Amino acid sequence: MPTKGRLYGIGVGPGDPELLTLKALRLLQAAPVVAYQSAVDKDSIARGIVSQYLSGHQIEVLFHLPRALEPETASAIYDQEVAPIAEHLAAGRDVVVLCEGDPFFYGSFMYVFTRLSEKYQTEVVPGVSSLMACPVALGVPFTYYNDIMTVLPAPMPAEQLITHLLATDAAAIMKLGRHFTKVRDVLHQLGLASRALYIERATMAQQTIIPLDQVDPDQVPYFSMIIIPTKSRL
Amino acid sequence: MPTKGRLYGIGVGPGDPELLTLKALRLLQAAPVVAYQSAVDKDSIARGIVSQYLSGHQIEVLFHLPRALEPETASAIYDQEVAPIAEHLAAGRDVVVLCEGDPFFYGSFMYVFTRLSEKYQTEVVPGVSSLMACPVALGVPFTYYNDIMTVLPAPMPAEQLITHLLATDAAAIMKLGRHFTKVRDVLHQLGLASRALYIERATMAQQTIIPLDQVDPDQVPYFSMIIIPTKSRL
Repeated sequence: MPTKGRLYGIGVGPGDPELLTLKALRLLQAAPVVAYQSAVDKDSIARGIVSQYLSGHQIEVLFHLPRALEPETASAIYDQEVAPIAEHLAAGRDVVVLCEGDPFFYGSFMYVFTRLSEKYQTEVVPGVSSLMACPVALGVPFTYYNDIMTVLPAPMPAEQLITHLLATDAAAIMKLGRHFTKVRDVLHQLGLASRALYIERATMAQQTIIPLDQVDPDQVPYFSMIIIPTKSRL
Repeated sequence: MPTKGRLYGIGVGPGDPELLTLKALRLLQAAPVVAYQSAVDKDSIARGIVSQYLSGHQIEVLFHLPRALEPETASAIYDQEVAPIAEHLAAGRDVVVLCEGDPFFYGSFMYVFTRLSEKYQTEVVPGVSSLMACPVALGVPFTYYNDIMTVLPAPMPAEQLITHLLATDAAAIMKLGRHFTKVRDVLHQLGLASRALYIERATMAQQTIIPLDQVDPDQVPYFSMIIIPTKSRL
C-alpha cells in the first residue's frame, strides 16, 4: 500500500493571477496532480487564473459540480465527480484542488472537502475573496470600525432583501443573474441606489464597472456583484 | 517640482507571511518607502508579517491611529499622522502602506486613503481577510450556496446581536475583547453555542483555538473571532 497523498484546497483569488498567495503558488507548483471544476463545455475559470504557473508536466483532473439539482441527485453526482481525485490520493499522489476566491467562502472546494477530508490528510489555503476584491476594484472603502456587513444572495424574495438591507451598514449582493431587476428596484425603493455600485469580473482582464441604472438586466453574468459601502465618515 | 510619488495600500493578509499575494510582495519590494501603523509602544503587527521581505534599505514610516476618540479629535490626529506619508509622496517617492488583512475591509488604510488618494495616484491591493482565514484555520466550511452571512462587531447591544443572529445563516463576530461574556451568553440563549467556534490570531505562530466555554473572558485579545458556520448540508 502506498502512503496516501495529501489533499490541498487552495484559493486562487478573484481573477488576477497576481492575487494568488505565495503559499498557494508553492503548493500548486509542487503538486503532481491539479484538479479544478468547470461548467460542462466551458473553460475552467480557476485553471485560467493559474495557467501561467503550471509546468505542463502535472496531471490535470477536471470535474463538474452541476448546480440547480435536487439535493439527493446532486450528492450522488458530486460523489462520482470527486472519485478521480480520491483515486490519485489513494495511489499516493498529492492533489491540489483549485478554487476561485476562497475555498470555504461560498467555494466549490467545500463539496470535495466534505467528501474526502476525513479519509485523506487535508490542508486548505485561504484566498482573496471577491468580497474584498470588488470594493478595491471600485475604489471605495467598504466597511469601517463597528459597521455591520451582510452578504446577501440575490435569489431571496424582495421582502427579505429589504429587511436585511435596512438592518445593515454595508452589504454585498451576489448571484445577481436574472435577479438583477428585482434587486435594482429594491435599492431604489430604499433610497440606496445612489450608494450602490455594480461590478462584473473584478480584477479579471474583462473587469467592467457600470452605473446601476445602465446595467442591461439581460446581460448580468454570474461573476457580478453589487456593493453598498459604509456611509460612515472616515 | 519632482513627479509625485504613488501611494499603494497593500493587504498583507491575516498573519502568515506566506499569505501575502504575489502582487503585494512585488510592490512591497519595489517601494523606497514602507509605512505601517502600530499602537503606541507596541510593535507593528503588519510590519512583523512582512519583515522577512524587507531589504533593509527602505525608508520606514511608523504612524499611529489611536482608537476610541471623539470623531473630531480623531480626524485632526489622523491628518497629522498621515503627513509624513504625504511628504514622501510630494518628494516623488512611492510609498507602500501595509495593512493587516484587506485594506478596505475594516482596514486602517482607509484613513490614509480618504486623506491622500485625491492628491496622489493611488493603488490598493486586496488581501486575505481574517474573515476567510479563521474558518480555514478552524477547518470548517463557512458559507455555502445561498447562505446569508453577517459580520457583527461585538460592541453592539445584546438585543441587536440577537436580532442579527436570528436572521442570518452564518456569522462572524469580531472585536470581542471585553464584550466576550455578553456574546457567549447570547449564543447560549439562542442555542448557537454548540455551533460557535472561537479562534485567536488565526494563521499567526501563536494561533489558538479554544472551546467557547473554556475561553477566559479576561484574556480575549483584539485578534480573536467567533465563527458560526453554515448549518447547510453539503
